[in-house]
Amino acid sequence: MKSTLIKNGTIVTASDEYVGDVFMKDGKIEMVGQGLDVTADEVVDATGKYVMPGGVDQHTHFLFKMDDSRCVGWESSAAAVCGGTTTVVDFVNQEVGKSLKESVENYERDEVGDLACCDYAFHTVVYDPTDELFEEIKKLPEYGITSVKLFMAYKGQAYHMEDGSVLRALQSAKEAGVTIMVHAENAEMIATLQQQTMDAGITGPYGHAVSRPPIVEEEAVKRAACLAELADAPIYIVHVTAKGAMEAIRDAYAKGVKIFGETCTHYLTVKTDVLKSTSPENGEFEGAKYVCSPALRSQEHIDAMWEAIRKGWLNAVSSDHCAFNFEEHKKRGLGDFRKIPNGCAGVENRMQMVWTYGVETGKISKQQFVELCCTNPAKINGIYPQKGTLAPGSDADVLIYDPNGESTITMATSHHKTDYEPFEGWKVKGRPSKVYLRGELVVEDSQYVGKEGTGKFVAGKPFGLAYQK
Amino acid sequence: MKSTLIKNGTIVTASDEYVGDVFMKDGKIEMVGQGLDVTADEVVDATGKYVMPGGVDQHTHFLFKMDDSRCVGWESSAAAVCGGTTTVVDFVNQEVGKSLKESVENYERDEVGDLACCDYAFHTVVYDPTDELFEEIKKLPEYGITSVKLFMAYKGQAYHMEDGSVLRALQSAKEAGVTIMVHAENAEMIATLQQQTMDAGITGPYGHAVSRPPIVEEEAVKRAACLAELADAPIYIVHVTAKGAMEAIRDAYAKGVKIFGETCTHYLTVKTDVLKSTSPENGEFEGAKYVCSPALRSQEHIDAMWEAIRKGWLNAVSSDHCAFNFEEHKKRGLGDFRKIPNGCAGVENRMQMVWTYGVETGKISKQQFVELCCTNPAKINGIYPQKGTLAPGSDADVLIYDPNGESTITMATSHHKTDYEPFEGWKVKGRPSKVYLRGELVVEDSQYVGKEGTGKFVAGKPFGLAYQK
Amino acid sequence: MKSTLIKNGTIVTASDEYVGDVFMKDGKIEMVGQGLDVTADEVVDATGKYVMPGGVDQHTHFLFKMDDSRCVGWESSAAAVCGGTTTVVDFVNQEVGKSLKESVENYERDEVGDLACCDYAFHTVVYDPTDELFEEIKKLPEYGITSVKLFMAYKGQAYHMEDGSVLRALQSAKEAGVTIMVHAENAEMIATLQQQTMDAGITGPYGHAVSRPPIVEEEAVKRAACLAELADAPIYIVHVTAKGAMEAIRDAYAKGVKIFGETCTHYLTVKTDVLKSTSPENGEFEGAKYVCSPALRSQEHIDAMWEAIRKGWLNAVSSDHCAFNFEEHKKRGLGDFRKIPNGCAGVENRMQMVWTYGVETGKISKQQFVELCCTNPAKINGIYPQKGTLAPGSDADVLIYDPNGESTITMATSHHKTDYEPFEGWKVKGRPSKVYLRGELVVEDSQYVGKEGTGKFVAGKPFGLAYQK
Amino acid sequence: MKSTLIKNGTIVTASDEYVGDVFMKDGKIEMVGQGLDVTADEVVDATGKYVMPGGVDQHTHFLFKMDDSRCVGWESSAAAVCGGTTTVVDFVNQEVGKSLKESVENYERDEVGDLACCDYAFHTVVYDPTDELFEEIKKLPEYGITSVKLFMAYKGQAYHMEDGSVLRALQSAKEAGVTIMVHAENAEMIATLQQQTMDAGITGPYGHAVSRPPIVEEEAVKRAACLAELADAPIYIVHVTAKGAMEAIRDAYAKGVKIFGETCTHYLTVKTDVLKSTSPENGEFEGAKYVCSPALRSQEHIDAMWEAIRKGWLNAVSSDHCAFNFEEHKKRGLGDFRKIPNGCAGVENRMQMVWTYGVETGKISKQQFVELCCTNPAKINGIYPQKGTLAPGSDADVLIYDPNGESTITMATSHHKTDYEPFEGWKVKGRPSKVYLRGELVVEDSQYVGKEGTGKFVAGKPFGLAYQK
Repeated sequence: MKSTLIKNGTIVTASDEYVGDVFMKDGKIEMVGQGLDVTADEVVDATGKYVMPGGVDQHTHFLFKMDDSRCVGWESSAAAVCGGTTTVVDFVNQEVGKSLKESVENYERDEVGDLACCDYAFHTVVYDPTDELFEEIKKLPEYGITSVKLFMAYKGQAYHMEDGSVLRALQSAKEAGVTIMVHAENAEMIATLQQQTMDAGITGPYGHAVSRPPIVEEEAVKRAACLAELADAPIYIVHVTAKGAMEAIRDAYAKGVKIFGETCTHYLTVKTDVLKSTSPENGEFEGAKYVCSPALRSQEHIDAMWEAIRKGWLNAVSSDHCAFNFEEHKKRGLGDFRKIPNGCAGVENRMQMVWTYGVETGKISKQQFVELCCTNPAKINGIYPQKGTLAPGSDADVLIYDPNGESTITMATSHHKTDYEPFEGWKVKGRPSKVYLRGELVVEDSQYVGKEGTGKFVAGKPFGLAYQK
Repeated sequence: MKSTLIKNGTIVTASDEYVGDVFMKDGKIEMVGQGLDVTADEVVDATGKYVMPGGVDQHTHFLFKMDDSRCVGWESSAAAVCGGTTTVVDFVNQEVGKSLKESVENYERDEVGDLACCDYAFHTVVYDPTDELFEEIKKLPEYGITSVKLFMAYKGQAYHMEDGSVLRALQSAKEAGVTIMVHAENAEMIATLQQQTMDAGITGPYGHAVSRPPIVEEEAVKRAACLAELADAPIYIVHVTAKGAMEAIRDAYAKGVKIFGETCTHYLTVKTDVLKSTSPENGEFEGAKYVCSPALRSQEHIDAMWEAIRKGWLNAVSSDHCAFNFEEHKKRGLGDFRKIPNGCAGVENRMQMVWTYGVETGKISKQQFVELCCTNPAKINGIYPQKGTLAPGSDADVLIYDPNGESTITMATSHHKTDYEPFEGWKVKGRPSKVYLRGELVVEDSQYVGKEGTGKFVAGKPFGLAYQK
Repeated sequence: MKSTLIKNGTIVTASDEYVGDVFMKDGKIEMVGQGLDVTADEVVDATGKYVMPGGVDQHTHFLFKMDDSRCVGWESSAAAVCGGTTTVVDFVNQEVGKSLKESVENYERDEVGDLACCDYAFHTVVYDPTDELFEEIKKLPEYGITSVKLFMAYKGQAYHMEDGSVLRALQSAKEAGVTIMVHAENAEMIATLQQQTMDAGITGPYGHAVSRPPIVEEEAVKRAACLAELADAPIYIVHVTAKGAMEAIRDAYAKGVKIFGETCTHYLTVKTDVLKSTSPENGEFEGAKYVCSPALRSQEHIDAMWEAIRKGWLNAVSSDHCAFNFEEHKKRGLGDFRKIPNGCAGVENRMQMVWTYGVETGKISKQQFVELCCTNPAKINGIYPQKGTLAPGSDADVLIYDPNGESTITMATSHHKTDYEPFEGWKVKGRPSKVYLRGELVVEDSQYVGKEGTGKFVAGKPFGLAYQK
Repeated sequence: MKSTLIKNGTIVTASDEYVGDVFMKDGKIEMVGQGLDVTADEVVDATGKYVMPGGVDQHTHFLFKMDDSRCVGWESSAAAVCGGTTTVVDFVNQEVGKSLKESVENYERDEVGDLACCDYAFHTVVYDPTDELFEEIKKLPEYGITSVKLFMAYKGQAYHMEDGSVLRALQSAKEAGVTIMVHAENAEMIATLQQQTMDAGITGPYGHAVSRPPIVEEEAVKRAACLAELADAPIYIVHVTAKGAMEAIRDAYAKGVKIFGETCTHYLTVKTDVLKSTSPENGEFEGAKYVCSPALRSQEHIDAMWEAIRKGWLNAVSSDHCAFNFEEHKKRGLGDFRKIPNGCAGVENRMQMVWTYGVETGKISKQQFVELCCTNPAKINGIYPQKGTLAPGSDADVLIYDPNGESTITMATSHHKTDYEPFEGWKVKGRPSKVYLRGELVVEDSQYVGKEGTGKFVAGKPFGLAYQK
């Protein structure tokens, strides 16, 4: 197999930064050094560029169904690598009446098929909380799967889970080293507020935010912490957005609860106000493009999220990619915001956005960027050190990031195959110059040059969260 | 009407203590002073005794049904006055399909009837959370009722309420000055733990405590605080028992949430261990006598409750009197602790127990005793200054407490008509020497000398909680 | 001796409020009641007025020397009663080389003399921290003195005390039930900032605030809490002004430290900005009228002080009366704010200001007003129940407050004999209609009608702080 | 210059761990990789061993004078490398009347001379807080020095600094990126307690602990946090030992104060009780061997220190090496514990102790070990990436740690030239097999094989603390 020598880049890992060379061969990082004197099939000059591990996005939904809508799937996975993310940890929804194992097998066969442009690991999502399911959780590591998500939100949906199920999942997961993840929002509060918001005549997209204030998340996070404390098992809070929720995680952790969490690109950048957007073609429904859950927040919360990742109170930044189309899906919620499918594309812009608004502004260091976007997500999901770092022996997933130049995110140059770009118009600094997946060049100048179907399953090892003391 | 002059007692109110006289006439306190020179139908020498307001017990269930059991009712209300409590705030359970008003009217007619030996106000309890119910809450003050309780606990019971109902109740109550009270335990956690406890072969009374650890209460209190914060309405947590729950109230209040709470006699005195009691006649089921919810706690929590009332973090001590019989009711749970009705008698011993284990030990002052057992409960429920104090113009509800002598609580001398005494064997210091209800002597040397049916309804005024800044 | 019957007033105590009558005789409250049918030398109709205990101001300096200035003394004590305050707890500064006892005797003889228009108890202030002094502290209750103040602030002044002295004072005070009070500001921080402020050319009154930011107080309060924790003795923080300082008290108390505190009238009302006042006659030096320590604060801190007294985190409101004259004293600091004597008149307006800006705005209840301005200061200083309440047997110190009418505080109508009025121009609601000192009418329509020298020493009993659990 | 290839070791950095090779040449790390195919002067097989960066001990005193005692100096610096520490950051005490620069020059010339066996950077220590000193702080980075320490403790010693000096130091340091470090103990509390302890007849070594309870440290840390907040400058707390002190750092940091801290080997392992040690030859004075400041703590505090470094609340482990001899120095305190010089040897055992009691017990991960003992201290002191990591381009300071075998620390095999071993009898797992200093082998099988005087000064770059967000 091919070998490549990347020379004179500024190599950044979760703890180091230095000018040097990376040599990869047979899909693995073989050495890093200064002035590497080695023969390579290809030599790439990375002078002035950053050489970093390929990103790991631990929160993508390449399949999610909400009411009658299903989001865009694996055909858009080139978007991941074009944005520098070489591995995703994707959610596999349990099929009701089936085991998680069977659900995963079906998903990989039917949905991933030969479409994957990036490597992938899987989380599972509980839809059918039977005794068998709670038994199966203990065996998940045998299949290379080490995390199970439960939705505390979404009253009335099949995937809404009661506290009893979260508790049982935690109990099952504990010994096996499986991580329980929860979408923490109070389903009852939301349902009540949604009805009241509709009754008050607020039927458009902004009603989404009105009916999901920060307290609904803060409450559920506190509840999750109590459930984890009762089970004495670790819990991971996905997509944290609210200051109070983050502080609840921080404080429970300080007190001894094994609670951890991530935030997402958009909760670091995009304000609630966009839900009030209008456009000539869509009028006030334009805001539907930004309907995701939890809802987008105010600047106070955005600032709190930056502080949280800088100080280590949250340990990863994900995309929560869930790419509903505007025309086909979002419009189902015309006249009733509750029917707008929740979710937006995001896997492509995660690293560029965090780099631009985090590293370039001095909010986080470059090492923290790598830690939050690559290394920690790999560790948390048990796929480190195969993924998430540039250490010798690791997969040769490499992002060469050119920090020069400024561009604007726009639909025309996006790869996610959704019919609109949620980050439309955002300025970004630098861009992925080259991306390698297991040693193969898959992205050149932000364009996909790989081959669909090259992405492979990465088996997770249990107790990933134990890395995060 | 008759007049009485109580002379030379040590008069204690929520803020004062002095030796003096109390003169009452026509059912009202007319004057307090030193060396009162006034003609009275009767003159009582209270030298060496404490003269205090009659107690207000804001948490009694003279009617409660759990599965097929219903607790002892108003025929035992003499127990209240015999213990120094001249007013109870009793819970009226909504009849499904009926308004609160009708439920209250039925209750007063059918249950209180002409049995009341003490005065009474009412809380209502939601069983049927319809739109009409939430509308009616706003009108409750018109009927002299100012509080509504919802059970967050008890999954599967008619009276279990979801968070959405608590939220709506808070919203309705807010403007009308109605206080929402909640029994805060996580129903889901408990149901899961109960099943697991049974599955583990722990079927006896101690299983009750195993399946209701402190965290189930702490969680629900935090949730209640979030619901109150969302509604921006006051909430009152009944029977707080757990250190973590109490701290959650204290901290949320400090942060600005309008949250308040009480604890109960037994959570200040009786330890969990009693659930493991055995007896020759009942074997290990003896512990069923102490099954109440929340479950009894360890010394650490008991200490925390004393600290909480001393420092003002909780503002009242109630009995949570709910007098199930052992033979008829408790035994329904033989072999399955889940079927043991939750609740015990307590209205009679509240003041003597708090006096003995609080005042006599120096944990609280005598003024705090009056505040916690009389004045604050009256204020909270909007029946102050008619009740709960010795101020001129107030109802002449007076407790003359003789601090001398020590006795032992025992079934033989109890008045509550349950078939066992939960405080059996506890030593107490002092006892009610005389109790007056609206000027009438109803208790003499701890014996009831009044007439059944003298008790009257006391209408509450809204915004009682506003007294508790 | 004379008897007086006050009829039909609204009687307010720390816990009660009702319409009724107060009868006083021989200098004592003899009875309170409704429709009192008793013969009195004088009958006063108080319909529509509030009848409350005379105020207790636990923080006055009728003698304080700063550099060459000494504040106005006992000749202005009529100001206290004219404002409704019938008792002050005044600070007696230890004479260097002399015992506290001798210092107190000298003070009472030479300074109080026959000038006192109000009753008075004494705090002592340490100037000479010898071994003998720390021994003497243990005997203070024998002389009816139960509190000792130490200044943590004021580097370079004789009365500045190091932490070691505070610690020793706490240790000595503990067993004897003496309360240690501290002026908590970091002397070192202030001295450094003062020099830097001067160096920066800020030499006028506003420099006072610049060099005493809230953190200097917060720091010293935290230090005081640690000293009290180490000594396991109670500590009282005088004139708390800063949010962070108050929270430090609240949190240390919650954790178990015996720490308590008061705030003052001006920290509840007057903003820092006044230090920037100008006037035609005084130019920018006008602000010197508002130089006191700690410095006045911003609205955020003022709000925090109201929250603190409403919620019980601070337990009294004092005046910190320390009446330097503008012409004679304040002007010594022209060109160097460090030389402006710290302190202002305040004993006269305390109750009217707190009533107007606390009760009338709904920030505190009328009972809280009495608790904060009368009852608690009496309890804290061990002069309750002789002072601070309207209970039978208490001294007949009564304030009849007429809530009607609005007036403006102004020099022309002030009684404090300083040459300016620090609250000049503040609007107040209501006013003292009549004030009785031990049964004698001393104020009528805000005018002093008593006789200089009637004020008497009130002996304090130890363990006053124990009332404040 | 020589090249060395270390093969097949388990390479551990602050974020990574993998089996691989390290190639170093000309004193620098040149490459790391798997199966490095490169010619080297020497090839070392590290199979089964850990290859880590040489340690950085940021807290050593190779010169410290207390009363008439001065600790053992640079002649014992081989102890550092024998324990795996290749760089120390040593304290240079300002000479009174001289600049920091001159003090450092004198120190390097007179004390370090040609004795250094390890590389070294310098902190300075303030003894003479003149205006000139505070000006000079701003220029320190020009000399490669970026930290200044002030002693808040030690009343009566020349180096004791008042809060004003700490404040001024912080202000000066801020812009220049200089880190202010403080020894945080309340000097006044200690002096008072020392006298009282002596007066109580406790004159032996245990009196040291009695007179320095945890609260003296907690207090000073809180004060330091306030000083840092006032100056808006970072502060670093050296040798944190007390739970409350650590929590004060954690909480102030969470609130936004730029406060950081380290703990030391002995505060992670050795309990207070050793101060009560006795021996045949020394009797109760044996405990003098363990007199250091702050005093050793109980298990509760030891546990808290482990939690703090695991969770990132403290960011480094130092030795606080200050090697007083027992016979010559410690014995000066016979009969008066206050005269026992404070400090013990420790630079040699730091890494082995932390490995044994941290890594081997699972309290911290191997990566955290490297972070705490090597990388973070290098970053904090601005000598990273030259020191503290194994990245290509870094100095070839390498520790090959053999995890096999267990040994016992004992004087006979120590290298620190003090006359006793404070860790005498402690069992340790593994040991430094080889240590390289800039590519030169200096330790082989725990024995020093280098040449005295090879150690070089390492210039620090400012803003090191900025790495620690």
